[in-house]
Amino acid sequence: MSITVAVDAMGGDVGLKVTIPASIQFLHDHPDNKLILVGDSTAIEAELHSCEPRLRSRIEIQHATQVVDMDEAPQLALKNKKDSSMRVAINLVKEGRAQACVSAGNTGALMATARFVLKTIPGIDRPAIAKLMPTVRGTTCVLDLGANVDCTPEQLLQFGIMGAELVASVSHQARPTVGLLNIGSEEIKGTGNIKLAAELFRASELNFYGNVEGDDIYKGTVDVVVCDGFTGNVALKTSEGLAHMISVFLREEFTRTWWTRLCALAAMPVLKHFKSRVDTRRYNGASMLGLRGIVVKSHGGTDAIGFRFALEQACEEVDSDVIGHITDQVALHQENRQRAEAQANQVPA
Amino acid sequence: MSITVAVDAMGGDVGLKVTIPASIQFLHDHPDNKLILVGDSTAIEAELHSCEPRLRSRIEIQHATQVVDMDEAPQLALKNKKDSSMRVAINLVKEGRAQACVSAGNTGALMATARFVLKTIPGIDRPAIAKLMPTVRGTTCVLDLGANVDCTPEQLLQFGIMGAELVASVSHQARPTVGLLNIGSEEIKGTGNIKLAAELFRASELNFYGNVEGDDIYKGTVDVVVCDGFTGNVALKTSEGLAHMISVFLREEFTRTWWTRLCALAAMPVLKHFKSRVDTRRYNGASMLGLRGIVVKSHGGTDAIGFRFALEQACEEVDSDVIGHITDQVALHQENRQRAEAQANQVPA
Repeated sequence: MSITVAVDAMGGDVGLKVTIPASIQFLHDHPDNKLILVGDSTAIEAELHSCEPRLRSRIEIQHATQVVDMDEAPQLALKNKKDSSMRVAINLVKEGRAQACVSAGNTGALMATARFVLKTIPGIDRPAIAKLMPTVRGTTCVLDLGANVDCTPEQLLQFGIMGAELVASVSHQARPTVGLLNIGSEEIKGTGNIKLAAELFRASELNFYGNVEGDDIYKGTVDVVVCDGFTGNVALKTSEGLAHMISVFLREEFTRTWWTRLCALAAMPVLKHFKSRVDTRRYNGASMLGLRGIVVKSHGGTDAIGFRFALEQACEEVDSDVIGHITDQVALHQENRQRAEAQANQVPA
Repeated sequence: MSITVAVDAMGGDVGLKVTIPASIQFLHDHPDNKLILVGDSTAIEAELHSCEPRLRSRIEIQHATQVVDMDEAPQLALKNKKDSSMRVAINLVKEGRAQACVSAGNTGALMATARFVLKTIPGIDRPAIAKLMPTVRGTTCVLDLGANVDCTPEQLLQFGIMGAELVASVSHQARPTVGLLNIGSEEIKGTGNIKLAAELFRASELNFYGNVEGDDIYKGTVDVVVCDGFTGNVALKTSEGLAHMISVFLREEFTRTWWTRLCALAAMPVLKHFKSRVDTRRYNGASMLGLRGIVVKSHGGTDAIGFRFALEQACEEVDSDVIGHITDQVALHQENRQRAEAQANQVPA
């Protein structure tokens, strides 16, 4: 099946110099798919000058006059940037001209705009940001990574349902296990909110594992880790900081003297292979789940390789009909809940 | 000055086989200091059989008949284990026979018992767990790491004062910078609680940097990072998980074939030096701050090297009078607050 993805070509710290090479490589790897590049058409055309005609024929350019700044307040972007590359790319999904949209722009503005334009799936209170993280065993989907600082137990449960459907669809895994991020595995641990959420998870249709701790993310203890956006964002950023520190230390050690540089030369193939396994670019696409359209957020500071992975993520979600699966599962959850409530409220004869 | 540290010899996943070798090495490195080893005296004596007499003379054994289990409920331990090695070690601090206590036992039980026996410093609502973490630039003190899941803005401020005094005392650093862990540097970011806390921090005597994000911990952006115990614990455990995954991947890559094993051999000295820089054992001692006595928690699963670092941490805190500094600073904070409140309430003439 041919998939069309709308690309916010101007988004991210770098913009066109990242999004265009990534787009060209993507079309090279996916001979059936198409892209609509959204942004300043003259600048995009200039950037595409060396693109092979067979790839260029699968690119459409959609002009947009504005760009959302990386530090712009989401509500201001929503109000004042109606012709931004970001907004126009999301509009293309709404209009059905594209099946997904990818942006490396301002996260808050992307979420606010996507929610405003696309709306949420019935039964979903708030969209969440989900990401596959590498683990010792494979990958784990973690959500929410920063869209919602405060979450009710019911919202956490909705995140669990969405995360499980993402993993089930994209990784073709039946009944993924879901864990609730906490500071201990025992039921008595955590905030009141988390304890209430755990009760909802246990009573739900999910394959609930129970509480998990921070280290379980990278152990791959469960397929889906659910948390509020504050905790998730801290966990993600802390991981980024630690990974960066470790890479700085490794580089420092291998460049300390001429002898250690020689050691690095000898170990280079091994280090390269290691690096590829922990390469954050491979896990770059974060999904904004719960919307009536597929929106994938790329890290603002990524390069063309990273942005290409975000495009791949968007395609996989279209291909596996993640939104259809989430919609069905949330509807089922609501039915079950209403039935349970009706039973509970039934007046005995 | 000679310092006496009470050691919960039975605590931790391993117990005596870790605490006793660590204690002997500690006494070897610190010819002025003394230890009181608390636990089953016969078992401790047996473990000390090969200890040199010049070190043995600085060891006192204090018998205790009970041991707190690693998964025992804190309140049950407090109620039923009045003669546990943990409780007796804390009692020694209360009685003034030791200036600090170190335990690798059950964290919740240690905190509950220490709080019950030693009480908090006047003006401190709740003690917090603080730890020095390695960063690109040196170390950063992070607190709370799990003692308090919910924290008021005032409690977060108290954590800030305690963390700053710990760094000022132990690292001899004047006016350490303090950051509030958040999901963005802008003032509008985060929960209502965090925003209120930021206002208190700005109005306080602290050298407040502003909001910091998870990656700032390992960047060493500030000297002290303040957060509630839920977030801090998730950040710490997530870091442990990631560090473990990276070490597993490195090992796997270097042992994949005979050729990569040869590469590892060549790179061994460099890898060893790298490993020593990220060795969690060096950062093993977590301080339970806010108590009227020094209590240091060692990781339950550490080895003798790690436990020795926890003993060192306890000594440094005694040596630099951390408790005196915290007590003075909290009193000053309270005075300033009362003065501000009095001024605000003053009826104009």
